[in-house]
Amino acid sequence: MARIVMKFGGTSVADLDRIRNVANRVKREVDAGNEVAVVVSAMSGVTNQLVRWCQELSPLHDAREYDTVVATGEQVTIGLLAIALQTIGVDARSWQGWQVPIVTDGAHGKARVERIEGATLIERMRQGQVPVVAGFQGVEPVRNRVTTLGRGGSDLSAVALAAAVKADRCDIYTDVDGIYTTDPRIVPRARKLEKISYEEMLELASVGAKVLQTRSVELAMKQRVRVQVLSSFEDKPGSLVVDEDEIVEQPIVSGIAYSRDDAKVTLRRVPDRPGIAAGVFGALAAANCNVDMIVQNIGADGTTDMTFTVGKADLARAQDVLEKARGELGFEALVADPDVAKISVVGVGMRSHAGVANTMFRALSEKGINIQVISTSEIKVSVLIGAEYTELAVRALHTAYGLDGPAA
Amino acid sequence: MARIVMKFGGTSVADLDRIRNVANRVKREVDAGNEVAVVVSAMSGVTNQLVRWCQELSPLHDAREYDTVVATGEQVTIGLLAIALQTIGVDARSWQGWQVPIVTDGAHGKARVERIEGATLIERMRQGQVPVVAGFQGVEPVRNRVTTLGRGGSDLSAVALAAAVKADRCDIYTDVDGIYTTDPRIVPRARKLEKISYEEMLELASVGAKVLQTRSVELAMKQRVRVQVLSSFEDKPGSLVVDEDEIVEQPIVSGIAYSRDDAKVTLRRVPDRPGIAAGVFGALAAANCNVDMIVQNIGADGTTDMTFTVGKADLARAQDVLEKARGELGFEALVADPDVAKISVVGVGMRSHAGVANTMFRALSEKGINIQVISTSEIKVSVLIGAEYTELAVRALHTAYGLDGPAA
Repeated sequence: MARIVMKFGGTSVADLDRIRNVANRVKREVDAGNEVAVVVSAMSGVTNQLVRWCQELSPLHDAREYDTVVATGEQVTIGLLAIALQTIGVDARSWQGWQVPIVTDGAHGKARVERIEGATLIERMRQGQVPVVAGFQGVEPVRNRVTTLGRGGSDLSAVALAAAVKADRCDIYTDVDGIYTTDPRIVPRARKLEKISYEEMLELASVGAKVLQTRSVELAMKQRVRVQVLSSFEDKPGSLVVDEDEIVEQPIVSGIAYSRDDAKVTLRRVPDRPGIAAGVFGALAAANCNVDMIVQNIGADGTTDMTFTVGKADLARAQDVLEKARGELGFEALVADPDVAKISVVGVGMRSHAGVANTMFRALSEKGINIQVISTSEIKVSVLIGAEYTELAVRALHTAYGLDGPAA
Repeated sequence: MARIVMKFGGTSVADLDRIRNVANRVKREVDAGNEVAVVVSAMSGVTNQLVRWCQELSPLHDAREYDTVVATGEQVTIGLLAIALQTIGVDARSWQGWQVPIVTDGAHGKARVERIEGATLIERMRQGQVPVVAGFQGVEPVRNRVTTLGRGGSDLSAVALAAAVKADRCDIYTDVDGIYTTDPRIVPRARKLEKISYEEMLELASVGAKVLQTRSVELAMKQRVRVQVLSSFEDKPGSLVVDEDEIVEQPIVSGIAYSRDDAKVTLRRVPDRPGIAAGVFGALAAANCNVDMIVQNIGADGTTDMTFTVGKADLARAQDVLEKARGELGFEALVADPDVAKISVVGVGMRSHAGVANTMFRALSEKGINIQVISTSEIKVSVLIGAEYTELAVRALHTAYGLDGPAA
């Protein structure tokens, strides 16, 4: 017997048939003697519609009212799933964020969970009732208003709830059946990982593996919540995200991730003097543009070239901000290139193994792929390349690190 | 300067353009120096969709979960309207039922409002902020769950809110521009009533004039809330529902209403003994079938014929219940006729004028319309006739009571 939080995303509850399917999955865990709480997202497409309405009324809408509107998506799903569960004989009741309560700060639209009252839910679960909790939403207690946690926030709700009710496991049901060494659509011989460490998952999530929301992995790591990613449509075990110590055979590289969400910006002939980087990135930060990879070439004539990446969605704003500050910053030209991809190799084994980056550079070079920018962390090497080489690079690296499974 | 509650129904907030239109209406009242609170329904069609989902999952769904689901419709509208108001410079904030709070009993799906906390809203209105309150919903405080007030409940929310904030007037914006002497689709010469008393409106509402929900009129009468019915699409004064004393020129008959929502049931040759009516109507009440008009003919041979009406939606259930009790009740045959209409003549002037019913009977007789059942109250005479005579009867009565306005 275990205590489990099961989380189902938008595609898993997209219509009444799928909601019935979810109810059956939950019933199976209950029948197996487990204590179960469920977290659900809005039916797929619903949140987008609600967001669109708010934006059409005003691009600068009040985030508190936005939260009131978009939180309704999850509210519909919890009620419907509770009914579906009751219909097949499972005692269930829905819980909105303010009813639990899931207490957050007041950063509407991207609130942080501060505290979840777990005691009542635990008591209900012990009595055999299944709490069906709205993902993505919470309540800000000072003004008593509904908040939302930002996109992908239901993963975060599930992990936070699992911590609050001291669950043995948090099962994230989604439209893929686990975490793979890389995207199986690009590499048919990609292998499903039985286990992966929090640290690796975090790096993979933040560089483009869209299976789990980054903040939810951070929280799982911090609270030591065992997370399983598995398919809501198939009936087989998924991938476990756990503490590094739980993984016996630790490969050097666990996965290859890619992202085409970034754009490259190069400032040509920036004066090579102290404070110039602070000027550039200070201006970008003030405009709320997230900067990721940064590289600065050594200059020869008192100037230097500075290259960095920003999210594609922020590119126009970044260009605008920098062109406005051009007189002050003194660069000669700004060159933007949205046709880039970031390829990352991730593995905790890198800590104890040398030559991991070199294998990467050699494999890419053999395919004639030019590396534009490099950045590294303790367990990750990322390179920026031309976007058209994405698939080629991912496949070459997957083979180079010995990740290929049997031919599909 | 006045304090006004403005209520907009589903067709008035059916899309973003209409929500913008509502915002402009509200702004006009604010600009005129009034303190305004707004009550809105769900965008038209939304509630039906939500109800359908619940019913498809289970015809016997948990009413508490049903309420969780269907209350989302109004939650979307309040957020969107608050954004639309802010966009045109009107300070506004949305309020869900549990936030106000609008406290109800625990009769989910058809809850009764017990108490509305008006102080905070009054304070906000004094500061110039427009509270945008979700109609149709409340909160049951013991279990802290969302409740809904039943169909048409937003009218009730508006009237209750108007009483709670001590509003000078409750304006119900709808898709007609006021209360007419009868349905203008049937009688083009129907006249809009400038004023009508609570009592008359109550009779008209309960016999089929669908402008205002019956319970909201009851509440307005009890709390002495002045209610105005007016069009959200046109810009002209509507009809005021007020205390009888406020109406100087009181006509004998104010309006003619009709309803085709009832079915006639006749029990033939019921034993004419004490307790038999209790047996019949007790069984129907136990099965939750509302009985309206009742007539019992005098019997000759120790039996009698008993005729009554039930809502068409309840007819199958009523037949089922009575057939099952047939042995016990001892009637010979049950004859059901759904092809009937109820025509009602309403007016407080009836109290002091004789012959009102007689005018009705004569007018119908002149058109060759057979009266099947008659029932009366202090200010109303209703008759049941064949459904195909509905329009003919309404037109004849409208003329007979001198209600016709100038030719349209």
